Amino acid sequence: MNAPAHIKKSQQSANPAEQLTMMASSDMQDVNAIILERMDSPVGMIPDLAQHLVEAGGKRLRPLLTIASAHLCGDVTSSHHKLAAAVEFIHSATLLHDDVIDDSDLRRGRKVANRIWGNSASILVGDFLFARAFNLMVETGSLEALNILSTASSVIAEGEVQQLATLRNIHMNEDIYMQVIGAKTAALFAAACEVSPVVSSCNQDQQEALKNYGQNLGLAFQLVDDALDYGGFEAALGKSVGDDFREGKLTLPVIRAIENADDDEMTFWKRVMSDQKQDDTDFERAVSILRQNGALDATIDMARKFAQDAKSSLSVFDNNDWRMVLEELADYVVERIN
Amino acid sequence: MNAPAHIKKSQQSANPAEQLTMMASSDMQDVNAIILERMDSPVGMIPDLAQHLVEAGGKRLRPLLTIASAHLCGDVTSSHHKLAAAVEFIHSATLLHDDVIDDSDLRRGRKVANRIWGNSASILVGDFLFARAFNLMVETGSLEALNILSTASSVIAEGEVQQLATLRNIHMNEDIYMQVIGAKTAALFAAACEVSPVVSSCNQDQQEALKNYGQNLGLAFQLVDDALDYGGFEAALGKSVGDDFREGKLTLPVIRAIENADDDEMTFWKRVMSDQKQDDTDFERAVSILRQNGALDATIDMARKFAQDAKSSLSVFDNNDWRMVLEELADYVVERIN
Repeated sequence: MNAPAHIKKSQQSANPAEQLTMMASSDMQDVNAIILERMDSPVGMIPDLAQHLVEAGGKRLRPLLTIASAHLCGDVTSSHHKLAAAVEFIHSATLLHDDVIDDSDLRRGRKVANRIWGNSASILVGDFLFARAFNLMVETGSLEALNILSTASSVIAEGEVQQLATLRNIHMNEDIYMQVIGAKTAALFAAACEVSPVVSSCNQDQQEALKNYGQNLGLAFQLVDDALDYGGFEAALGKSVGDDFREGKLTLPVIRAIENADDDEMTFWKRVMSDQKQDDTDFERAVSILRQNGALDATIDMARKFAQDAKSSLSVFDNNDWRMVLEELADYVVERIN
Repeated sequence: MNAPAHIKKSQQSANPAEQLTMMASSDMQDVNAIILERMDSPVGMIPDLAQHLVEAGGKRLRPLLTIASAHLCGDVTSSHHKLAAAVEFIHSATLLHDDVIDDSDLRRGRKVANRIWGNSASILVGDFLFARAFNLMVETGSLEALNILSTASSVIAEGEVQQLATLRNIHMNEDIYMQVIGAKTAALFAAACEVSPVVSSCNQDQQEALKNYGQNLGLAFQLVDDALDYGGFEAALGKSVGDDFREGKLTLPVIRAIENADDDEMTFWKRVMSDQKQDDTDFERAVSILRQNGALDATIDMARKFAQDAKSSLSVFDNNDWRMVLEELADYVVERIN
């Protein structure tokens, strides 16, 4: 179950995400082969568009979690590879639909697919990948895995609708925000981790532990993402900054800033968020307010707490390289902001 | 397996679709209860939007096919009701996405959902219903039913993408057209019929027969729909006429007309279809050409042939009221044009 020596050596300078990628590289070759095979279609626009998204790659964080969870639960089988590919397909489908909804420009450092092939193609190829994800799950023969991932899929859609319904609403509060990110992001992280024990010989406690790990990691991940939207640099992130601001998406940094706003700041937030009247200097001012009143730090502190919960969940497993890399990953998800 | 006497009486003046609705009314009450229960969500926009679509009702043709197929195969169970609801959810999800893609105004005689709640909500609620469909299927415990409906779902998306890729292409031919309607429409009709025997005690021949019935009925249905887009009246159809024309969607009537076009007509089709330059009188001219050169009649003739194939498929079943109503339905799907 430990990583081979030659991998260990090259891991020393790698961050935990890179370490995980190296440790899972042989499994991920199989996963990628399934992804390429199953996104194929005689209708040429489908593989063209899917490949645009898949080739950009991203971190493949969710299928990596499925593979790591499989290793924590014993032998890794072709069912785990199929589930990992299914998880990536569901994620890709939601990205394609999100890009239409958010009207964003960049995804994984590339032009978003709908800017090239149009919104209609992005909607339909998303549907195609989603259906193919279920085909893959069926092949594993696990109704429990199908249940976990179909439930996660409906929860993701619920979270996205709730986010839509609260756009530009400056009365958005922390509870609703946590529901939204728990649904739109953490549910798939949790499912990605939970499906592996289902087709392994893990016990119920271990399955629950992996689900909790994924849920908490997902919350930490999204909190940091939402902070980065006000603090990162476009090139480093591979996505635009200020998207949430421009769309009037009330994320935790802004919710906290509004809680602590003086009259002048309140007028500002109402204008830029509720009325969506923004000029060129407003984003800079927003960042400056969030920094000054500690809203970004508070967001990161909360992320750190969830990362800690994620790590604690793994205590039911023996100490080994897979548990260690998942624990380090939880810290890294937060500390990547620096 | 025969319909009760009181229903038989009221059937005498009813068309086959109405007859089927009456015969299946007790089952459809259960199906509708499942639909209402499962489209619910604490996120209010979801039931609001889903209800707008579901209340408009439509003919509920696809779940009716699932119920009728179940009756042909013996006892009808709660699994059949769940599968029928899942089929309707998949259909509703594709309608929500189609309306965004086609930019249509009316659906089932009502304003389309995206004109009220916006494109983003329609995309996401479609995703939600699709995920809920899979939840329902999981509850039946049938991996085969899951396989049939997930495969149908990916085929539908393929058909829709292929249709998108051939928009405004006057070199579109009959083979590609048949592939498109086989995928975007007939695949779900086929799956709606095929899933019932899977959770019944039907044999392989009967399962295959129901699949063929659904496939051929779906082809007939879409051919007539495409003819009606050039010949019906908005009020009677509950949807706009001329949609395909305005979108540059090359359906069989136009493909046939282009095959037989003189130079003058060819110039017309190129302008209105490829170049999408249309004025107020062009739709009328298109209808007049299609009528004159027999393209609409040829389309209906082909639909009649598929309806005949649908009916023939059912010969493996004993003669009873359910077989009879499905046979009559096949004729009715074509003759409703008059």
